[in-house]
Amino acid sequence: MASKYNDDSFMLHTDLYQINMVETYWRDGIHNRRAVFELFFRKLPFGNGYAVYAGLEKIVSIIKNFKFTEDDIEYLKSECGYGDDFLEYLANMKFTGTIRSMKEGEIVFAGEPLIRIDAPLAEAQLIETVLLNIVNYQTLIATKASRIKHVLLNEMALEFGSRRAQEMEAAIWGARSAYIAGFEATSNVRAGKVFGIPISGTHAHSMVQAYRDEYTAFRKYAETHKDCVFLVDTYDTLRSGVPNAIRVAKEFGDKINFIGIRLDSGDLAYLSKEARRMLDEAGFTEAHVVASSDLDEYTIMNLKAQGAKIDTWGIGTKLITAYDQPALGAVYKIVSIEDENGKMNDTIKISSNPEKVTTPGLKKVYRIINQTNGRSEGDYIALEEENPQGEERLKMFHPTHTYISKFVTNFEARDLHQDIFVNGEQVYTLPDLEEIRKYSSDSLNLLWDEYQRSLNPEEYPVDLSQKCWDNKMRNIEEVRDKVAALGESHHR
Amino acid sequence: MASKYNDDSFMLHTDLYQINMVETYWRDGIHNRRAVFELFFRKLPFGNGYAVYAGLEKIVSIIKNFKFTEDDIEYLKSECGYGDDFLEYLANMKFTGTIRSMKEGEIVFAGEPLIRIDAPLAEAQLIETVLLNIVNYQTLIATKASRIKHVLLNEMALEFGSRRAQEMEAAIWGARSAYIAGFEATSNVRAGKVFGIPISGTHAHSMVQAYRDEYTAFRKYAETHKDCVFLVDTYDTLRSGVPNAIRVAKEFGDKINFIGIRLDSGDLAYLSKEARRMLDEAGFTEAHVVASSDLDEYTIMNLKAQGAKIDTWGIGTKLITAYDQPALGAVYKIVSIEDENGKMNDTIKISSNPEKVTTPGLKKVYRIINQTNGRSEGDYIALEEENPQGEERLKMFHPTHTYISKFVTNFEARDLHQDIFVNGEQVYTLPDLEEIRKYSSDSLNLLWDEYQRSLNPEEYPVDLSQKCWDNKMRNIEEVRDKVAALGESHHR
Repeated sequence: MASKYNDDSFMLHTDLYQINMVETYWRDGIHNRRAVFELFFRKLPFGNGYAVYAGLEKIVSIIKNFKFTEDDIEYLKSECGYGDDFLEYLANMKFTGTIRSMKEGEIVFAGEPLIRIDAPLAEAQLIETVLLNIVNYQTLIATKASRIKHVLLNEMALEFGSRRAQEMEAAIWGARSAYIAGFEATSNVRAGKVFGIPISGTHAHSMVQAYRDEYTAFRKYAETHKDCVFLVDTYDTLRSGVPNAIRVAKEFGDKINFIGIRLDSGDLAYLSKEARRMLDEAGFTEAHVVASSDLDEYTIMNLKAQGAKIDTWGIGTKLITAYDQPALGAVYKIVSIEDENGKMNDTIKISSNPEKVTTPGLKKVYRIINQTNGRSEGDYIALEEENPQGEERLKMFHPTHTYISKFVTNFEARDLHQDIFVNGEQVYTLPDLEEIRKYSSDSLNLLWDEYQRSLNPEEYPVDLSQKCWDNKMRNIEEVRDKVAALGESHHR
Repeated sequence: MASKYNDDSFMLHTDLYQINMVETYWRDGIHNRRAVFELFFRKLPFGNGYAVYAGLEKIVSIIKNFKFTEDDIEYLKSECGYGDDFLEYLANMKFTGTIRSMKEGEIVFAGEPLIRIDAPLAEAQLIETVLLNIVNYQTLIATKASRIKHVLLNEMALEFGSRRAQEMEAAIWGARSAYIAGFEATSNVRAGKVFGIPISGTHAHSMVQAYRDEYTAFRKYAETHKDCVFLVDTYDTLRSGVPNAIRVAKEFGDKINFIGIRLDSGDLAYLSKEARRMLDEAGFTEAHVVASSDLDEYTIMNLKAQGAKIDTWGIGTKLITAYDQPALGAVYKIVSIEDENGKMNDTIKISSNPEKVTTPGLKKVYRIINQTNGRSEGDYIALEEENPQGEERLKMFHPTHTYISKFVTNFEARDLHQDIFVNGEQVYTLPDLEEIRKYSSDSLNLLWDEYQRSLNPEEYPVDLSQKCWDNKMRNIEEVRDKVAALGESHHR
């Protein structure tokens, strides 16, 4: 880099306005007031019935390294003109707050606080941008991967998207997110090294071109590798590629594991059926047909409907960029703030877009699991002091269309939040990746099929408790009254 | 991370198949054969008439650090089962190749080699994935930013997308790409620190909520900051937000620079016109109206068509993710390879998708600039040994619809490639960011308006020289003849 400053910390990986607000708070002496923020998204992506939460592991490492470096301070001093007194405050800042979060891999829904940050106002503000940056991407990709895995059932799903990822961290964290949601492997070797994800890959068109003869290229690969998948579409899939793969597989016999062939272009339905027939006729009934080429859940469903004989799927661009909706849109909103007397006051943001109105107060999210059938009845967002498990009969009602309601009995109310940091100390032991993957799969299995469907799923109930709902309405009324007193408007 | 390996290098930021191919090449003794690869994209993104190339600076730093670490080797040994002899070869590898590239910020088109890698086969193969990962994203965002800047003309464009970026590197490299293409500032402070980009931002809704009173919040901000932009939509833009901003601006007078107000929700056309009127009536005719809220070039054009009074634009999600087309799809293809006799042979990849057929041979890209009017007549891709500048009359013809042709005289044929590395040594001095930004703007100005238009632009000519075209046809025929000899197919 041409810069005079080292890229030696993530503390400045934040929007400038956060630091400006912190300066106001600090100069006004309110920077240490207790503030509670929630991180949530407003709408499920891809029209899916659920999302898969990911990002916690990286967030923990960011929070543990909450410390401005000398270069950070020097930059803020020289280039941004902050005063020395304020910079000294920044230089000495530590993270002292409490963070509760969903478990990584959790099945989550719109409006649910995925993370709750209860910290001195200044600290909570400084971590907003980076937390959103991480959760927005990783949750998006885990959710997309889950959709793709859903249509594949037990067939193998390989993440092949590194070259099309939006820069380098997206490649490896996207691979990890896909693995959490059920993918079997990634092609990215660094993701394998750093996260312990299984890796997969054999050869590219360039190898066939480098040997200038397909048969020679396949032979050379077979001479140097036990496991062989031959890429058959460099020149002509059915006339050249598949016959050469079969010829080499026959010639090498038991000396190699002829895993199969890979198709990377052309009509995958037609080519896979023909290739399958040729492989079977040659006696290679166990050989796999791997396919890649701009695949996503829709193309896969369509190929399957046409009887494509593909059993291993390499998924690239459409997964790693979440091509059909490349942003989740999670936000980070303040829900309660301490006043000058040390009392906590709930706070709300009003908007003419109803979905942008926030839900005030400290909250918990419970998954209401029916003890009779082990399936989830819905999620229940309650105020901190409530205890839904203590209720004999729990009333659940739709937060907008309140007449839609039901009573639930014989249920477990599972608190979905874990304490991650308490007063700045990490109290949570990060699970390893296999555990996260298993947890995610188990969590998905709590859902009835109707919520798991890729197209037009039923809406899973995410309800507010009566107290939480009443509190929100009271806060809305207060603000509306205050604004109404200011005069008329032709807008509502 | 839970991993036992440090994330201490980018050498494994590659697809597994690259390493597997390198093993084949090395065991077969052809790893040091000279190979030439080109990096290019096949189709302009967003229906735009041109793209803005970005990514070179990061690529240079990747190539300079081409070296497997001990952890890399240990991982490949323990987890992937490569032999010790091959691992020793990898451990000692250095990059010894020659790389030519467009200048960063260059205006580029489909089919043009943005980068040409002329290196020992194994080395060229290992850097493929990471080069694509970088160029694909940075070029995509620079291009999207250029489109947005095009509709804004001289109005200020601010990059506000960090929270929605696809992981952390996308946030800062995206900010840099946007700046190259003409954006004025970013909100990401780390991007400011690392790249020297101007940064921008004032306060968020949370500050208004923290003070629980909009007027108080604006006052507190004004007490602690000279430059003030008040965010006016926390409760009610026209009844509360704008009047409070005006009140505070009047009260503070010359003590602050009342830069203006920011709108972040609601109907931006209506609200901006009303806010403009209120500001003007209060005497703040110089105050700016800043707007943000899911903006892109289409919404901006539409808002302008409705007479919106916005003069500074904060662009987030739609830019930083390239929302309407989140992947560029650049590829990396071998065009020539040394044979056992030391002779270079051109090589081609055939596909039933015509746009996927590669153009063989070592090539240069020339921009043909008309000396009479200083505008570009088109680009001309010629074989290495050709010298278009030596021609009196240059024939340019469409590479598919060959009847579309013209003769150009009195032209400059500007070689768009620079030597970046020669035999592994960096020979190129990276320009600073301001130079890149200026170069990009100058390069865009070579294009007639018809190619710069955001909607339905004219197709800019990117032609092959006669020799280059003949060479491609000859290569196609050779492969087709070879395949035809293998038998019939109902597919063409």
